[in-house]
Amino acid sequence: MLVQEYFNTRKNLVETALDKFLSAEDIKTKQLHEAMRYAVFNGGKRLRPILFFATYEMLIGRKNINRLERLLPAACSLEMIHSASLIHDDLPIIDNSRERRGKPSCHIKFGDATAILAGDALITLAFEILTEIKNRKTALKCIDILTQAVSTRGMIGGQAVDILSAKRKINLNTLRYIHLKKTGALLQASMELACTIYEAEENVTITLGNFALNLGLAYQIVDDILDEVGSFDILGREPGEDSRNNKAPYSALMGLEKSKKTAEKLLRDSYNLIKNMKNNDILIEFVNMIKERLP
Amino acid sequence: MLVQEYFNTRKNLVETALDKFLSAEDIKTKQLHEAMRYAVFNGGKRLRPILFFATYEMLIGRKNINRLERLLPAACSLEMIHSASLIHDDLPIIDNSRERRGKPSCHIKFGDATAILAGDALITLAFEILTEIKNRKTALKCIDILTQAVSTRGMIGGQAVDILSAKRKINLNTLRYIHLKKTGALLQASMELACTIYEAEENVTITLGNFALNLGLAYQIVDDILDEVGSFDILGREPGEDSRNNKAPYSALMGLEKSKKTAEKLLRDSYNLIKNMKNNDILIEFVNMIKERLP
Repeated sequence: MLVQEYFNTRKNLVETALDKFLSAEDIKTKQLHEAMRYAVFNGGKRLRPILFFATYEMLIGRKNINRLERLLPAACSLEMIHSASLIHDDLPIIDNSRERRGKPSCHIKFGDATAILAGDALITLAFEILTEIKNRKTALKCIDILTQAVSTRGMIGGQAVDILSAKRKINLNTLRYIHLKKTGALLQASMELACTIYEAEENVTITLGNFALNLGLAYQIVDDILDEVGSFDILGREPGEDSRNNKAPYSALMGLEKSKKTAEKLLRDSYNLIKNMKNNDILIEFVNMIKERLP
Repeated sequence: MLVQEYFNTRKNLVETALDKFLSAEDIKTKQLHEAMRYAVFNGGKRLRPILFFATYEMLIGRKNINRLERLLPAACSLEMIHSASLIHDDLPIIDNSRERRGKPSCHIKFGDATAILAGDALITLAFEILTEIKNRKTALKCIDILTQAVSTRGMIGGQAVDILSAKRKINLNTLRYIHLKKTGALLQASMELACTIYEAEENVTITLGNFALNLGLAYQIVDDILDEVGSFDILGREPGEDSRNNKAPYSALMGLEKSKKTAEKLLRDSYNLIKNMKNNDILIEFVNMIKERLP
């Protein structure tokens, strides 16, 4: 199967399921539902659900879209959390981003108050749909993994440190912490959820979790480099936005050349963690996708 | 046991547990943790956890604080959700309340951005701690009940309609919807969680759920009446605040006298739903507490 076909079919699969989970139910809360749908169906690449599917299909040893049905609650929960975090991040009192993917942000379109509630509702819905996983032990383990990834020890913690760090000098350790938590935690959860549903050995789960953390860190460093030297086409947003938001990019702290070398090393480390696993082609593609963005 | 002693001991119990669940873990997210703790330990009466304990202790037929240990995750989750909703409601872009219980609101003390994240983190933590309930079936049912109570069909939905209704003429049905969802849903969940952990018969769960919804609606109507004719001492906040926020109080839609009569009828209905149950004294006390606030 062509890699592009893999990405397209899995993207369609998760989008069909998201559409079902996000069908409006009550005319009174129509606007809130519309805000949630607007944020979720914003042209995103669905990388977290696809990484989750790819991990599971590597573990079961074959690519078979018909076997992914029972994975849909977890796949959609990852995307809902990701969307919720973007809604809240874009708010005027956080990043003040008026656009996302070339369209008005959720709060520009629906107002700040509805945007806050849409984010709250997506976080809640993400956990609600995980209760639909049939095996109870698996369902609870998935909820535990995802709540931890979102918590103060995960994505929210990373965002909190990021906010405090704006307009301040921070060191490389703190920036690393922000990236690992803000981006890495949810990628790690994507792979750990797949391992949990497959009931993988613990050492496999740990290895794949580390793969995800390396990948997330590499992605952020490349993003920072592109923010400095890239164009709108590659970046998907205006370059220079981070530094305008008083966020120190990686490259500012360690220089462009050393940033590139760090990203390359992280991608090499990622590759090494999975190179001996069977059926690893889609995971390797994730590594290559980031490598190809490097200028 | 004196009623006041019951309330005090159960309040202490849940506060000790909240303190444990909210112990800081990471120096980097210290400010976020402080904001969460500030919002949770703000002098609240812990009515939802106490209603939850009272329901359970009525069902098991005795008041014994030593048997409440396993109820603590659910008790604390109710209070975390309640606190999160207050943090987000108080934000400038929603209710713009600068004070709560005579102290600066969370966002005034910690900034808007940290307040948004503290709310997100409390919602997430509420669901995370429910995974600690030992019996898996019970744990999943509790997560299902609480996510639904918080969702677009519950508290968040009520808040969304409330926001849209500000500065608009609304009818009594819509106001009823707002109160039932914004306040009623979490009270209903408090009693349903107790029923679930006790494994009560379905008809008991439904009856007690209706008791909670009536109680919530009565509470809101009394609050609206006090907003018009009450004082700071009874209300716990400045009277007239709702109408200044362009929120139509019940009394404005149906008049003061008819509002009183509606509240009295709801409280009578509540009482009738539980009057034949054994060991119902604390639940009756909840009805009386609201009745006594009526001017």
